[in-house]
Amino acid sequence: MTKTNPGNFFEDFYVGQVIRHATPRTVTEGDVALYTAIYGPRFAVQSSDAFARKLGYPRAPIDDLLTFHIVFGKTVPDISLNAVANLGYAGGRFLAPVYPGDTLSAVSEVIGLKENSNGKTGVVYVRSTGYKSDGTEVLDYVRWVMVNKRDPGSAAPVPVVPVLPESIDPDALGDACPLLSAHGWDPALAGSRFRFGDYVAGERIDHVDGMTVEESDHMLATRLYQNTAKVHFNQHTEGQGRFGRRLIYGGHVISLARALSFNGLGAAFHIAAINAGRHVAPLFAGDTVYAWSEVIDTARIEGRSDVGALRLRLVATKDLPCRTFPYADDSGVYAANVVLDFDYWALMPL
Amino acid sequence: MTKTNPGNFFEDFYVGQVIRHATPRTVTEGDVALYTAIYGPRFAVQSSDAFARKLGYPRAPIDDLLTFHIVFGKTVPDISLNAVANLGYAGGRFLAPVYPGDTLSAVSEVIGLKENSNGKTGVVYVRSTGYKSDGTEVLDYVRWVMVNKRDPGSAAPVPVVPVLPESIDPDALGDACPLLSAHGWDPALAGSRFRFGDYVAGERIDHVDGMTVEESDHMLATRLYQNTAKVHFNQHTEGQGRFGRRLIYGGHVISLARALSFNGLGAAFHIAAINAGRHVAPLFAGDTVYAWSEVIDTARIEGRSDVGALRLRLVATKDLPCRTFPYADDSGVYAANVVLDFDYWALMPL
Amino acid sequence: MTKTNPGNFFEDFYVGQVIRHATPRTVTEGDVALYTAIYGPRFAVQSSDAFARKLGYPRAPIDDLLTFHIVFGKTVPDISLNAVANLGYAGGRFLAPVYPGDTLSAVSEVIGLKENSNGKTGVVYVRSTGYKSDGTEVLDYVRWVMVNKRDPGSAAPVPVVPVLPESIDPDALGDACPLLSAHGWDPALAGSRFRFGDYVAGERIDHVDGMTVEESDHMLATRLYQNTAKVHFNQHTEGQGRFGRRLIYGGHVISLARALSFNGLGAAFHIAAINAGRHVAPLFAGDTVYAWSEVIDTARIEGRSDVGALRLRLVATKDLPCRTFPYADDSGVYAANVVLDFDYWALMPL
Repeated sequence: MTKTNPGNFFEDFYVGQVIRHATPRTVTEGDVALYTAIYGPRFAVQSSDAFARKLGYPRAPIDDLLTFHIVFGKTVPDISLNAVANLGYAGGRFLAPVYPGDTLSAVSEVIGLKENSNGKTGVVYVRSTGYKSDGTEVLDYVRWVMVNKRDPGSAAPVPVVPVLPESIDPDALGDACPLLSAHGWDPALAGSRFRFGDYVAGERIDHVDGMTVEESDHMLATRLYQNTAKVHFNQHTEGQGRFGRRLIYGGHVISLARALSFNGLGAAFHIAAINAGRHVAPLFAGDTVYAWSEVIDTARIEGRSDVGALRLRLVATKDLPCRTFPYADDSGVYAANVVLDFDYWALMPL
Repeated sequence: MTKTNPGNFFEDFYVGQVIRHATPRTVTEGDVALYTAIYGPRFAVQSSDAFARKLGYPRAPIDDLLTFHIVFGKTVPDISLNAVANLGYAGGRFLAPVYPGDTLSAVSEVIGLKENSNGKTGVVYVRSTGYKSDGTEVLDYVRWVMVNKRDPGSAAPVPVVPVLPESIDPDALGDACPLLSAHGWDPALAGSRFRFGDYVAGERIDHVDGMTVEESDHMLATRLYQNTAKVHFNQHTEGQGRFGRRLIYGGHVISLARALSFNGLGAAFHIAAINAGRHVAPLFAGDTVYAWSEVIDTARIEGRSDVGALRLRLVATKDLPCRTFPYADDSGVYAANVVLDFDYWALMPL
Repeated sequence: MTKTNPGNFFEDFYVGQVIRHATPRTVTEGDVALYTAIYGPRFAVQSSDAFARKLGYPRAPIDDLLTFHIVFGKTVPDISLNAVANLGYAGGRFLAPVYPGDTLSAVSEVIGLKENSNGKTGVVYVRSTGYKSDGTEVLDYVRWVMVNKRDPGSAAPVPVVPVLPESIDPDALGDACPLLSAHGWDPALAGSRFRFGDYVAGERIDHVDGMTVEESDHMLATRLYQNTAKVHFNQHTEGQGRFGRRLIYGGHVISLARALSFNGLGAAFHIAAINAGRHVAPLFAGDTVYAWSEVIDTARIEGRSDVGALRLRLVATKDLPCRTFPYADDSGVYAANVVLDFDYWALMPL
């Protein structure tokens, strides 16, 4: 018997199973500084205690994606250590703001299982929830991963495929955003003169700038999240693997694209929900990430006269500027060099 | 109409124009730790709360150059996004100590404009001021940059060239340094047995050590400062540009040289003013930075019996040790491999 | 006379000499975040204030090796700037927990001197002690280094070789670990269901995972520790040196191996003592570190019913998985690719 964690295989999961994940993590101003250094975000709410306080926050909350990455990282040793692929995300909601000093933990419930026809792998659906040490839930989301079977000969479970929402209902947004004082929003400090009413569905925005990724950057980030997926860290084995090199954590791409999106979406200060996410192609060190956004929808939130919600498609590419908005053809085949297709709700001052 | 920031062109500036820059930034202990990790400074005042308190600070102030870089970074999207070259700095004064928890913002005033004879570019002079959220000014300095015109056919403005001081008057130094308790200075902990009286004008000091820069290092730093200048980050476009690679932020070189200067100037704990600065040649990843200093002048500050001021020329080179003090010839032509010529006032215990 | 630090040569040391080292350092949450980002440790006590408080700590202590590296770094300019080799460590004890906000300083006493027969170098033995600004000692350890003589013709000192303990007595462990509330230990959050009683002497654990090191990573770490040893930073000179490249700080390997050891030793939450340490071969950027551990001994600590001690040999390799536990042959010759042999006591809940 080994004392090391071999990870769970497809046969180890059952619907209804609840897994408490290891290593609670107190988020600090150190994490925030690293997040800034790694991605270069410029959203004023997360950057400035003074700006956040004028709006009604007790202090600057941490970046929503930093919360996501920390929660996600905790699930890796139990859910995806033997994963072949991370297939998608859906139904993600941010439920409470997170501040430096909060301790985050995560728990996952298996909500679906389906063996693949090859008999070697299966898809595991989990709802993962991040919570603070006082029990406050900060995030929940569904992801599904393809996981190896330990024994191809083992029997398939009864297939259970959860019904996932295409998107989060606007009225379910806003839990992680306190009621804001509209007069506290200073457009010059925020870096954008555009507000909720200036955006319309169908509008597309090229975020212009590109960011090149180095091995050291993505490994620093992924270790910061205590994400232990082997493919990100070990050149000795990955050098002999299918890509010949380390694979960059998909969440790293989301954070890069989100930081780039400040240029055009400077007032979209908070990610309220993740409707869907797909890593279309892998990213490697040396690649340069570009991004563009499309406004899929705009919505008011019942009972809120401070903020509205934009449903955004954030597309990231590698080594391809986004002037022509590269995406997918009518049959859903992604254009070359697209690496991320991410559908989320952001809040913006009215 | 685009919602992305296209930056200002030469025609967009006018003398007297005041620009409030985006993204206020709360400085934290996380930023300080990253600054230490990126440059390796060892000045005791900024490294130790206990050492700083014995001198009379409420706690360790942040490194003066960290303040400079954060303020500078805020000005980039409005001032130098379309800059061809950052031509120089002058008249910089540090006006108040900055501590973790302070929120920094920046404002710039255009104080000069001069179109170049080619009709394609012009020089913009700005005085930028960094201030805390309570209005306390922490830094002001002048820089001038060469900026592209949007339209080469547009009319030239009346040229205005500000008169800049050759150096800051010694009696204007010291605002960012509280009155210190001389007996609190412990030379062993400070790492130098030399004090103000041990240095004489004309003295030159080779700082001996060299530091090699990696792509990841300078990009982490420059993103930490929320500096968005494209040339530092995008290998995809810079690979096709004039140098074939990313250009390192000039301020990165200043911080590297300043950190190296500890070896010989360990008691020069505070930068009180920047008289002049010039980036003589670009630095690239893989280059090794060396530095040497010359004492240009020494001065007492009226009313202060705790500290004196050294006016220092800090010269940095790449891939060239500074045993022979490489600098410039009589006609002002810099020696090969010199990358930085930086003239500043530092304070030292009497 | 130069104002730069030329470092001490063998002739400059004498038995009984006490050296107070420069640059006290306030440890912060920023340092902790960087430590996490650089090595990826997952021990719950150091990761979570909430977890640590349930056990009886006032908050999460910093990683023991972060304390070690900071104290070690301070000794470099005075002890090992002219060192040819860092020969070993022994007799290291952690004496008090260190928390963010504590300021660390270091002092060393020369406890042994022995000139080598070649007349060009000698071995210097020092006991270095790290302490907080209130005088609390946090760590002491012995290391010995081979240092160049300034003048090969100078007379040899009377040789003094200290008697060093083979290992720290178990009853001397535990000073840096408060009495813990056993019921506060949550195995799921801790990431391991194994406790003290599950480990037996002779047991070997392959930690499975590998971590590739980049130049930027190890330089960030070593600068964070304000360690100034030239060989880690200067490619311009090291490129012409005996390895043709920068040498990674030995302590970096210890921290990497310790972080990897979580996978199999997740409950070994605290390093109580360093019995012996040896850097068997150098590590370079691009190398991938693997590790395995052997339980050398298990011991109860007198008066403690909360924790027991495991004496562990932590072996790190480069570019060699540890399934076969590579170590040394009977004559003490290390196997190829072994880089670290580290003997320490860790505490684990009973």
